[in-house]
Amino acid sequence: MIDEMDTREPSVSRRGNRIIMPGMASVHSHAFQRALRGRTQRRATEAGSFWSWRRLMYTLAERLDPDDLFHISRFAFVELAMSGVTAVGEFHYLHHDRDGTPYEDRTLLAETVIRAAREAGLRIALIRTGYFRAGWRGALEPAQRRFCDASVEDALRDVETLQRRFAGDPMVRIGLAAHSVRAVPRPYIMELMAYARERALPFHMHVSEQRREVDECIEEYGLRPVALLDRMGALGEQFVAVHATHLNNDEIRALGGARAFVCLCRTTERDLGDGFPPTRPLVQAGARLCVGADSHASSDAFEEIRAVELDERSRLEVRHAVAEAPELLRAATQHGYQAIGMDDAWRDDWVALNADDPSLASLNEELLVDGLIFAATPRAVDEVTIAGRKVVIEGTHIHYEDARRGYEMTLRKLGFL
Amino acid sequence: MIDEMDTREPSVSRRGNRIIMPGMASVHSHAFQRALRGRTQRRATEAGSFWSWRRLMYTLAERLDPDDLFHISRFAFVELAMSGVTAVGEFHYLHHDRDGTPYEDRTLLAETVIRAAREAGLRIALIRTGYFRAGWRGALEPAQRRFCDASVEDALRDVETLQRRFAGDPMVRIGLAAHSVRAVPRPYIMELMAYARERALPFHMHVSEQRREVDECIEEYGLRPVALLDRMGALGEQFVAVHATHLNNDEIRALGGARAFVCLCRTTERDLGDGFPPTRPLVQAGARLCVGADSHASSDAFEEIRAVELDERSRLEVRHAVAEAPELLRAATQHGYQAIGMDDAWRDDWVALNADDPSLASLNEELLVDGLIFAATPRAVDEVTIAGRKVVIEGTHIHYEDARRGYEMTLRKLGFL
Repeated sequence: MIDEMDTREPSVSRRGNRIIMPGMASVHSHAFQRALRGRTQRRATEAGSFWSWRRLMYTLAERLDPDDLFHISRFAFVELAMSGVTAVGEFHYLHHDRDGTPYEDRTLLAETVIRAAREAGLRIALIRTGYFRAGWRGALEPAQRRFCDASVEDALRDVETLQRRFAGDPMVRIGLAAHSVRAVPRPYIMELMAYARERALPFHMHVSEQRREVDECIEEYGLRPVALLDRMGALGEQFVAVHATHLNNDEIRALGGARAFVCLCRTTERDLGDGFPPTRPLVQAGARLCVGADSHASSDAFEEIRAVELDERSRLEVRHAVAEAPELLRAATQHGYQAIGMDDAWRDDWVALNADDPSLASLNEELLVDGLIFAATPRAVDEVTIAGRKVVIEGTHIHYEDARRGYEMTLRKLGFL
Repeated sequence: MIDEMDTREPSVSRRGNRIIMPGMASVHSHAFQRALRGRTQRRATEAGSFWSWRRLMYTLAERLDPDDLFHISRFAFVELAMSGVTAVGEFHYLHHDRDGTPYEDRTLLAETVIRAAREAGLRIALIRTGYFRAGWRGALEPAQRRFCDASVEDALRDVETLQRRFAGDPMVRIGLAAHSVRAVPRPYIMELMAYARERALPFHMHVSEQRREVDECIEEYGLRPVALLDRMGALGEQFVAVHATHLNNDEIRALGGARAFVCLCRTTERDLGDGFPPTRPLVQAGARLCVGADSHASSDAFEEIRAVELDERSRLEVRHAVAEAPELLRAATQHGYQAIGMDDAWRDDWVALNADDPSLASLNEELLVDGLIFAATPRAVDEVTIAGRKVVIEGTHIHYEDARRGYEMTLRKLGFL
């Protein structure tokens, strides 16, 4: 297929009663949070705000053993594949044993998530995340012990281990993240960033998702998060700003001027009440868009990408806000792969949609990509091929029942069922 | 099934590997607009704003003959059924022949749409819509001649014809609409409203979808649209305010105090850049929510209902904004049926979802409805039963191929393919 098509640009074409598109990247994922789906939507639960939702997420994070993490992650990845995702960026911060002690094999959990992606047939960038404190003045909560690195050296040692163990594996990339300005003090951000830059690794950060995070950063540093990162020289073409919701104009210009990636996760951001990112100004300033399923609150890669445009239409009250369908396709595919260090591997991954699906039937030939981006649902996904391997056939993942049973067994064991 | 379940409240239950929910109502539909899907998303087309989108929609409306209308509507309804919709409110304003002359059988087009719903197996409320002018000072555009009534008497005569012809048909209801304050002068709104009230028919109106509409109403009447309707005594429990986007606090109180229905159409409203309705204040004031697929820009009944909550979370930056899942289910089912005059018929219509679908797998038994409202996609729909008839089996409509071929043939004939 790759020989016959123009693979320089992400594009869409018809083959008989199928529509062929490149595979999509879900750049920002916390796969273990899949287990929270449908369990945090009541006011009476502990999930009444972003911050109390986080407490519930911590309860889950405290309990997981490597086996649990494997089963939950594998099922999350299988579901992603069934909606057309072929590569995932796992923002991985669950590092240590339950009491905070490193595992004997320090990278056990990271490699567990990589194994889950491998069994699901997905490419994965393991974004090894540095996490050092609960906040400027906060004491560590119990679950956070599993996230915390004793030193930058420890974090970087893990990155090196992972790079060595997966060197030359076309399905795996290793990236680096500082969790947030909240969880990583300024000098540590600099060290992590410098390491990533020297080795040309993607560098991800949660940026300005919630207003409280912005306020605390101003309190600590006298600067807003992106202004701080800009002052530190941390922004650049490898920098992936996840969420980028609460920004002022200078920060928008800084991210755009650096040609940074902005990773929006609209289905999760809407779920958590984060607010609206200034998407059009960011793109106009030069930022490159990509998207992620983040908390897996829902899993529809088409909704994830069209929401970038549609939410901005609502915010600005205009009909065309950010980008037309070909640019949205680029965000979902080429930009996404680049943001997780997979470069042009999107050219080897394919999604075949059923052109007779009700969501896609009778599209204009010149506007296939418009129909797909603005109306496709996961039901339209027929076949997914990643690096030459068919992982979804007739809409179902080749290991679906195994993955579903393992997930169910795990939720039962955790007392969620 | 109906005997065994508690049918007093909309609820969800598990049967083996299926999740059973009541059928959903799509309260506000313009089925013929389905043909525009994927064809209005470029800036270069004539659809760069709500108003220029409307011009393109008019181009379509000018061309359709009864046969075209049948095929497009039937396919739109079939697609709705495949995402769990069992009853539709068709806000019907395409009344006359292309030159504006009434058909010899005046209600030909209305009955064509009813026939399309019947063949799709859906319940339909034909909301016969009065339309009298292009605006306060505008001249009629050519397409609008097909919409326009010569008099209120003509409009009401059609309503009576339809009521007579479909009397006693459990699958069909007839309702009444004034298109908008733009298209219907004040005294005509009063006459239509009085007629609907006397006969306890649902009365629908497009209300404050775009700011320009609000401004023009203030220019003409010195009042905003809902304030005007309130002053006229038009609001009440039969009143269905479609969109209700740009409201001030007095108008929110007026709609809430009247216990009016508010029909949100978020997938279309986002597509058109309408802005954000004040959903939480409306519900707190007493308004009853329901939803509609409107332009059929996309067709996912689960997304339609969860967007009501999720968009309001984004606007207010809170985690819980409008209602929990059981109330959202009520909006999609019971409220929707009531808003189109179908009362409790939702108790006879069922959607069976595949509990093993990736979007729903391993939900907490007590929170089935949460999982379904916040994460289901049309892929999860397995079987749809309307008034005892199975219209969707194994995810596919029983007449799917017929409907798809008829749609394709029609688009080809119209020069859209």
